[in-house]
Amino acid sequence: MTLEEIKMMIREIPDFPKKGIKFKDITPVLKDAKAFNYSIEMLAKALEGRKFDLIAAPEARGFLFGAPLAYRLGVGFVPVRKPGKLPAETLSYEYELEYGTDSLEIHKDAVLEGQRVVIVDDLLATGGTIYASAKLVESLGGIVDSIIFLTELTFLDGRKKLDGYDIISLIKF
Amino acid sequence: MTLEEIKMMIREIPDFPKKGIKFKDITPVLKDAKAFNYSIEMLAKALEGRKFDLIAAPEARGFLFGAPLAYRLGVGFVPVRKPGKLPAETLSYEYELEYGTDSLEIHKDAVLEGQRVVIVDDLLATGGTIYASAKLVESLGGIVDSIIFLTELTFLDGRKKLDGYDIISLIKF
Repeated sequence: MTLEEIKMMIREIPDFPKKGIKFKDITPVLKDAKAFNYSIEMLAKALEGRKFDLIAAPEARGFLFGAPLAYRLGVGFVPVRKPGKLPAETLSYEYELEYGTDSLEIHKDAVLEGQRVVIVDDLLATGGTIYASAKLVESLGGIVDSIIFLTELTFLDGRKKLDGYDIISLIKF
Repeated sequence: MTLEEIKMMIREIPDFPKKGIKFKDITPVLKDAKAFNYSIEMLAKALEGRKFDLIAAPEARGFLFGAPLAYRLGVGFVPVRKPGKLPAETLSYEYELEYGTDSLEIHKDAVLEGQRVVIVDDLLATGGTIYASAKLVESLGGIVDSIIFLTELTFLDGRKKLDGYDIISLIKF
Protein backbone atom coordinates (compact mmCIF):
# COMPACT_ATOMS: atom_id res chain seq x y z
CA MET A 1 0.00 0.00 0.00
CA THR A 2 1.09 3.58 -0.69
CA LEU A 3 -0.25 7.02 0.16
CA GLU A 4 -0.93 7.47 -3.55
CA GLU A 5 -3.30 4.49 -3.36
CA ILE A 6 -5.01 5.99 -0.31
CA LYS A 7 -5.39 9.24 -2.23
CA MET A 8 -7.08 7.39 -5.10
CA MET A 9 -9.57 5.84 -2.65
CA ILE A 10 -10.74 9.23 -1.36
CA ARG A 11 -13.76 9.99 -3.48
CA GLU A 12 -15.12 13.36 -4.42
CA ILE A 13 -18.81 14.04 -3.76
CA PRO A 14 -20.09 17.06 -5.72
CA ASP A 15 -22.28 19.68 -4.04
CA PHE A 16 -21.87 18.38 -0.48
CA PRO A 17 -22.61 19.72 2.08
CA LYS A 18 -23.73 22.54 -0.24
CA LYS A 19 -23.74 23.49 -3.90
CA GLY A 20 -20.32 24.12 -5.38
CA ILE A 21 -18.36 22.23 -2.74
CA LYS A 22 -16.50 19.11 -3.80
CA PHE A 23 -16.43 17.07 -0.62
CA LYS A 24 -13.54 14.65 -0.03
CA ASP A 25 -15.11 11.48 1.32
CA ILE A 26 -12.71 9.34 3.36
CA THR A 27 -15.23 6.58 4.20
CA PRO A 28 -13.84 4.25 1.47
CA VAL A 29 -10.49 4.41 3.29
CA LEU A 30 -12.11 3.58 6.64
CA LYS A 31 -13.99 0.53 5.43
CA ASP A 32 -10.95 -0.99 3.71
CA ALA A 33 -9.05 -2.77 6.49
CA LYS A 34 -5.66 -2.42 4.79
CA ALA A 35 -6.11 1.21 3.83
CA PHE A 36 -7.36 2.18 7.28
CA ASN A 37 -4.50 0.35 8.97
CA TYR A 38 -1.95 1.87 6.62
CA SER A 39 -3.32 5.38 7.18
CA ILE A 40 -2.92 5.05 10.93
CA GLU A 41 0.59 3.60 10.52
CA MET A 42 1.64 6.48 8.26
CA LEU A 43 0.22 9.07 10.68
CA ALA A 44 2.14 7.35 13.50
CA LYS A 45 5.31 7.32 11.43
CA ALA A 46 5.00 11.03 10.64
CA LEU A 47 4.99 11.72 14.39
CA GLU A 48 8.06 9.57 15.12
CA GLY A 49 10.58 11.20 17.42
CA ARG A 50 8.10 13.67 18.88
CA LYS A 51 7.39 13.59 22.60
CA PHE A 52 3.84 14.35 23.58
CA ASP A 53 1.24 13.35 26.16
CA LEU A 54 -2.11 13.56 24.44
CA ILE A 55 -3.89 13.53 21.14
CA ALA A 56 -6.83 15.90 20.76
CA ALA A 57 -9.30 15.81 17.87
CA PRO A 58 -12.49 17.64 16.93
CA GLU A 59 -15.68 15.66 16.43
CA ALA A 60 -16.68 13.64 14.61
CA ARG A 61 -14.30 12.73 11.76
CA GLY A 62 -11.28 13.75 13.82
CA PHE A 63 -12.22 10.97 16.24
CA LEU A 64 -11.91 8.37 13.46
CA PHE A 65 -8.19 8.98 13.03
CA GLY A 66 -7.31 10.59 16.36
CA ALA A 67 -8.57 7.79 18.61
CA PRO A 68 -6.79 4.92 16.78
CA LEU A 69 -3.64 7.02 16.60
CA ALA A 70 -3.74 7.67 20.37
CA TYR A 71 -4.20 3.93 20.93
CA ARG A 72 -1.37 3.10 18.51
CA LEU A 73 1.04 5.57 20.12
CA GLY A 74 0.07 4.81 23.72
CA VAL A 75 -1.10 8.30 24.66
CA GLY A 76 -4.41 9.58 26.01
CA PHE A 77 -7.17 11.08 23.87
CA VAL A 78 -9.06 14.34 24.34
CA PRO A 79 -12.28 15.00 22.42
CA VAL A 80 -13.04 18.53 21.21
CA ARG A 81 -16.78 18.74 20.74
CA LYS A 82 -19.67 20.88 19.58
CA PRO A 83 -21.52 22.91 22.23
CA GLY A 84 -23.54 20.94 24.76
CA LYS A 85 -21.96 17.56 24.06
CA LEU A 86 -19.30 17.38 26.78
CA PRO A 87 -20.92 16.65 30.15
CA ALA A 88 -18.47 18.19 32.65
CA GLU A 89 -17.20 21.79 32.95
CA THR A 90 -16.00 23.13 29.61
CA LEU A 91 -14.10 25.97 27.99
CA SER A 92 -15.63 27.28 24.78
CA TYR A 93 -14.04 28.93 21.74
CA GLU A 94 -16.12 30.77 19.17
CA TYR A 95 -14.92 30.99 15.58
CA GLU A 96 -16.19 32.55 12.41
CA LEU A 97 -17.79 30.73 9.51
CA GLU A 98 -18.53 32.09 6.06
CA TYR A 99 -21.91 33.14 7.47
CA GLY A 100 -22.21 33.46 11.23
CA THR A 101 -20.19 31.76 13.95
CA ASP A 102 -19.74 28.33 15.48
CA SER A 103 -18.05 27.15 18.63
CA LEU A 104 -16.18 24.19 20.04
CA GLU A 105 -15.68 23.00 23.60
CA ILE A 106 -13.11 21.11 25.62
CA HIS A 107 -13.34 19.77 29.17
CA LYS A 108 -11.55 22.09 31.60
CA ASP A 109 -9.69 19.13 33.10
CA ALA A 110 -8.77 17.56 29.75
CA VAL A 111 -5.24 18.96 29.50
CA LEU A 112 -2.85 19.77 32.33
CA GLU A 113 -0.52 22.79 32.36
CA GLY A 114 2.54 22.01 30.27
CA GLN A 115 1.24 18.83 28.64
CA ARG A 116 2.19 18.48 24.99
CA VAL A 117 -0.69 17.81 22.64
CA VAL A 118 -0.87 16.68 19.01
CA ILE A 119 -4.07 17.73 17.25
CA VAL A 120 -5.44 15.34 14.62
CA ASP A 121 -8.07 15.70 11.91
CA ASP A 122 -8.97 13.92 8.70
CA LEU A 123 -8.70 16.99 6.50
CA LEU A 124 -7.26 20.50 6.52
CA ALA A 125 -9.63 22.84 4.69
CA THR A 126 -9.86 26.46 5.89
CA GLY A 127 -8.45 25.49 9.29
CA GLY A 128 -11.19 27.09 11.41
CA THR A 129 -12.06 24.10 13.60
CA ILE A 130 -8.42 23.20 14.07
CA TYR A 131 -7.46 26.75 15.00
CA ALA A 132 -10.25 26.68 17.60
CA SER A 133 -9.02 23.29 18.88
CA ALA A 134 -5.47 24.64 19.23
CA LYS A 135 -6.67 27.71 21.12
CA LEU A 136 -8.70 25.53 23.50
CA VAL A 137 -5.66 23.36 24.24
CA GLU A 138 -3.57 26.47 24.87
CA SER A 139 -6.24 28.08 27.08
CA LEU A 140 -5.82 25.10 29.41
CA GLY A 141 -2.05 25.60 29.54
CA GLY A 142 -1.26 22.85 27.05
CA ILE A 143 1.37 23.14 24.36
CA VAL A 144 0.42 22.31 20.77
CA ASP A 145 3.28 20.08 19.67
CA SER A 146 2.00 19.73 16.13
CA ILE A 147 -1.12 19.37 14.03
CA ILE A 148 -1.50 16.42 11.70
CA PHE A 149 -3.99 15.70 8.92
CA LEU A 150 -4.50 12.72 6.66
CA THR A 151 -5.36 15.08 3.80
CA GLU A 152 -4.99 18.74 2.95
CA LEU A 153 -6.83 20.92 0.44
CA THR A 154 -3.89 23.16 -0.38
CA PHE A 155 -5.93 25.63 -2.47
CA LEU A 156 -7.89 26.67 0.65
CA ASP A 157 -4.71 27.86 2.31
CA GLY A 158 -5.56 26.55 5.77
CA ARG A 159 -1.86 26.65 6.67
CA LYS A 160 -2.01 30.44 6.64
CA LYS A 161 -4.74 30.38 9.29
CA LEU A 162 -2.54 28.01 11.33
CA ASP A 163 0.64 30.06 10.89
CA GLY A 164 3.12 29.44 13.69
CA TYR A 165 2.05 25.83 14.25
CA ASP A 166 3.94 22.79 13.07
CA ILE A 167 1.65 21.33 10.38
CA ILE A 168 1.89 17.85 8.87
CA SER A 169 -0.34 16.42 6.14
CA LEU A 170 0.12 13.12 4.35
CA ILE A 171 -1.96 13.60 1.22
CA LYS A 172 -2.35 16.86 -0.69
CA PHE A 173 -5.10 17.84 -3.13
CA MET B 1 -5.06 -2.42 35.27
CA THR B 2 -8.46 -4.04 35.74
CA LEU B 3 -11.98 -3.40 34.48
CA GLU B 4 -12.91 -2.51 38.06
CA GLU B 5 -10.36 0.33 37.89
CA ILE B 6 -11.80 1.49 34.56
CA LYS B 7 -15.25 1.45 36.15
CA MET B 8 -14.00 3.68 38.98
CA MET B 9 -12.65 6.18 36.43
CA ILE B 10 -16.04 6.62 34.75
CA ARG B 11 -17.51 9.64 36.48
CA GLU B 12 -21.13 10.46 36.98
CA ILE B 13 -22.35 13.90 35.89
CA PRO B 14 -25.72 14.80 37.46
CA ASP B 15 -28.50 16.35 35.36
CA PHE B 16 -26.80 15.87 31.98
CA PRO B 17 -28.00 16.14 29.26
CA LYS B 18 -31.17 16.95 31.20
CA LYS B 19 -32.47 17.10 34.76
CA GLY B 20 -32.66 13.75 36.53
CA ILE B 21 -30.21 11.93 34.26
CA LYS B 22 -26.94 10.76 35.76
CA PHE B 23 -24.60 10.77 32.78
CA LYS B 24 -21.70 8.32 32.70
CA ASP B 25 -18.72 10.29 31.45
CA ILE B 26 -16.01 8.14 29.86
CA THR B 27 -13.63 11.02 29.00
CA PRO B 28 -11.38 10.30 32.04
CA VAL B 29 -10.81 6.83 30.57
CA LEU B 30 -9.92 8.29 27.16
CA LYS B 31 -7.37 10.77 28.42
CA ASP B 32 -5.55 8.20 30.56
CA ALA B 33 -3.21 6.41 28.15
CA LYS B 34 -3.15 3.17 30.15
CA ALA B 35 -6.88 3.06 30.75
CA PHE B 36 -7.70 3.81 27.11
CA ASN B 37 -5.25 1.19 25.89
CA TYR B 38 -6.56 -1.39 28.34
CA SER B 39 -10.18 -0.69 27.35
CA ILE B 40 -9.41 -1.35 23.69
CA GLU B 41 -7.43 -4.50 24.57
CA MET B 42 -10.32 -5.84 26.67
CA LEU B 43 -12.84 -5.11 23.91
CA ALA B 44 -10.55 -6.93 21.45
CA LYS B 45 -10.21 -9.86 23.84
CA ALA B 46 -13.98 -10.14 24.27
CA LEU B 47 -14.27 -10.58 20.48
CA GLU B 48 -11.59 -13.28 20.26
CA GLY B 49 -12.55 -16.23 18.11
CA ARG B 50 -15.23 -14.33 16.20
CA LYS B 51 -14.89 -13.96 12.46
CA PHE B 52 -16.12 -10.67 11.05
CA ASP B 53 -15.32 -8.18 8.30
CA LEU B 54 -16.25 -4.79 9.66
CA ILE B 55 -16.85 -2.75 12.76
CA ALA B 56 -19.70 -0.24 12.63
CA ALA B 57 -20.32 2.42 15.25
CA PRO B 58 -22.75 5.32 15.73
CA GLU B 59 -21.38 8.84 16.06
CA ALA B 60 -19.76 10.33 17.95
CA ARG B 61 -18.75 8.38 21.08
CA GLY B 62 -19.04 5.07 19.26
CA PHE B 63 -16.21 6.28 16.99
CA LEU B 64 -13.90 6.67 20.00
CA PHE B 65 -13.92 2.95 20.75
CA GLY B 66 -15.02 1.52 17.41
CA ALA B 67 -12.25 3.06 15.28
CA PRO B 68 -9.33 1.98 17.53
CA LEU B 69 -10.88 -1.47 17.84
CA ALA B 70 -11.15 -1.80 14.03
CA TYR B 71 -7.51 -0.74 13.75
CA ARG B 72 -6.47 -3.17 16.52
CA LEU B 73 -8.32 -6.10 14.94
CA GLY B 74 -7.38 -5.32 11.34
CA VAL B 75 -10.90 -4.86 9.99
CA GLY B 76 -12.57 -1.97 8.21
CA PHE B 77 -14.71 0.67 9.92
CA VAL B 78 -18.18 1.91 9.00
CA PRO B 79 -19.56 5.11 10.53
CA VAL B 80 -23.27 5.34 11.34
CA ARG B 81 -24.16 9.01 11.41
CA LYS B 82 -26.86 11.57 12.10
CA PRO B 83 -28.88 12.80 9.10
CA GLY B 84 -27.03 14.91 6.55
CA LYS B 85 -23.53 14.01 7.71
CA LEU B 86 -22.63 11.22 5.29
CA PRO B 87 -21.85 12.63 1.85
CA ALA B 88 -22.70 9.75 -0.52
CA GLU B 89 -25.96 7.85 -0.98
CA THR B 90 -27.42 6.72 2.31
CA LEU B 91 -30.05 4.49 3.88
CA SER B 92 -31.92 6.04 6.79
CA TYR B 93 -33.59 4.45 9.83
CA GLU B 94 -36.00 6.38 12.00
CA TYR B 95 -36.39 5.46 15.65
CA GLU B 96 -38.46 6.70 18.55
CA LEU B 97 -37.23 8.82 21.40
CA GLU B 98 -39.04 9.61 24.63
CA TYR B 99 -40.48 12.62 22.80
CA GLY B 100 -40.46 12.54 19.01
CA THR B 101 -38.18 10.63 16.69
CA ASP B 102 -34.60 10.67 15.51
CA SER B 103 -32.83 8.95 12.66
CA LEU B 104 -29.47 7.52 11.69
CA GLU B 105 -27.86 6.94 8.33
CA ILE B 106 -25.37 4.58 6.73
CA HIS B 107 -23.73 4.74 3.32
CA LYS B 108 -25.45 2.37 0.89
CA ASP B 109 -22.10 0.94 -0.16
CA ALA B 110 -20.74 0.60 3.39
CA VAL B 111 -21.56 -3.09 3.88
CA LEU B 112 -21.67 -5.82 1.25
CA GLU B 113 -24.23 -8.64 1.20
CA GLY B 114 -23.16 -11.33 3.64
CA GLN B 115 -20.43 -9.35 5.39
CA ARG B 116 -20.30 -9.91 9.14
CA VAL B 117 -20.36 -6.76 11.23
CA VAL B 118 -19.65 -6.09 14.91
CA ILE B 119 -21.38 -2.98 16.24
CA VAL B 120 -19.53 -0.99 18.92
CA ASP B 121 -20.60 1.76 21.30
CA ASP B 122 -19.33 3.20 24.55
CA LEU B 123 -22.51 2.59 26.51
CA LEU B 124 -25.72 0.56 26.32
CA ALA B 125 -28.59 2.62 27.71
CA THR B 126 -32.06 2.11 26.18
CA GLY B 127 -30.54 0.61 23.05
CA GLY B 128 -32.33 2.86 20.52
CA THR B 129 -29.35 4.05 18.51
CA ILE B 130 -27.79 0.60 18.50
CA TYR B 131 -31.02 -1.06 17.37
CA ALA B 132 -31.15 1.48 14.51
CA SER B 133 -27.50 0.77 13.66
CA ALA B 134 -28.19 -2.99 13.55
CA LYS B 135 -31.22 -2.51 11.29
CA LEU B 136 -29.18 -0.35 8.92
CA VAL B 137 -26.47 -3.01 8.67
CA GLU B 138 -29.12 -5.66 7.99
CA SER B 139 -30.90 -3.50 5.40
CA LEU B 140 -27.68 -3.59 3.38
CA GLY B 141 -27.54 -7.39 3.60
CA GLY B 142 -24.94 -7.45 6.38
CA ILE B 143 -25.06 -9.89 9.28
CA VAL B 144 -24.77 -8.48 12.82
CA ASP B 145 -22.23 -10.81 14.37
CA SER B 146 -22.45 -9.20 17.79
CA ILE B 147 -22.84 -5.88 19.58
CA ILE B 148 -20.23 -4.81 22.10
CA PHE B 149 -20.22 -1.99 24.67
CA LEU B 150 -17.62 -0.79 27.12
CA THR B 151 -20.36 -0.11 29.68
CA GLU B 152 -23.97 -1.06 30.25
CA LEU B 153 -26.68 0.58 32.35
CA THR B 154 -28.46 -2.63 33.26
CA PHE B 155 -31.43 -0.88 34.93
CA LEU B 156 -32.47 0.60 31.56
CA ASP B 157 -32.94 -2.88 30.13
CA GLY B 158 -31.44 -2.11 26.72
CA ARG B 159 -30.83 -5.82 26.19
CA LYS B 160 -34.58 -6.34 25.90
CA LYS B 161 -34.70 -3.88 23.00
CA LEU B 162 -31.80 -5.79 21.39
CA ASP B 163 -33.34 -9.23 21.98
CA GLY B 164 -32.04 -11.80 19.50
CA TYR B 165 -28.62 -10.16 19.14
CA ASP B 166 -25.44 -11.38 20.76
CA ILE B 167 -24.65 -8.63 23.31
CA ILE B 168 -21.36 -8.14 25.14
CA SER B 169 -20.59 -5.47 27.74
CA LEU B 170 -17.46 -5.20 29.84
CA ILE B 171 -18.60 -2.98 32.71
CA LYS B 172 -22.05 -3.00 34.27
CA PHE B 173 -23.73 -0.28 36.33
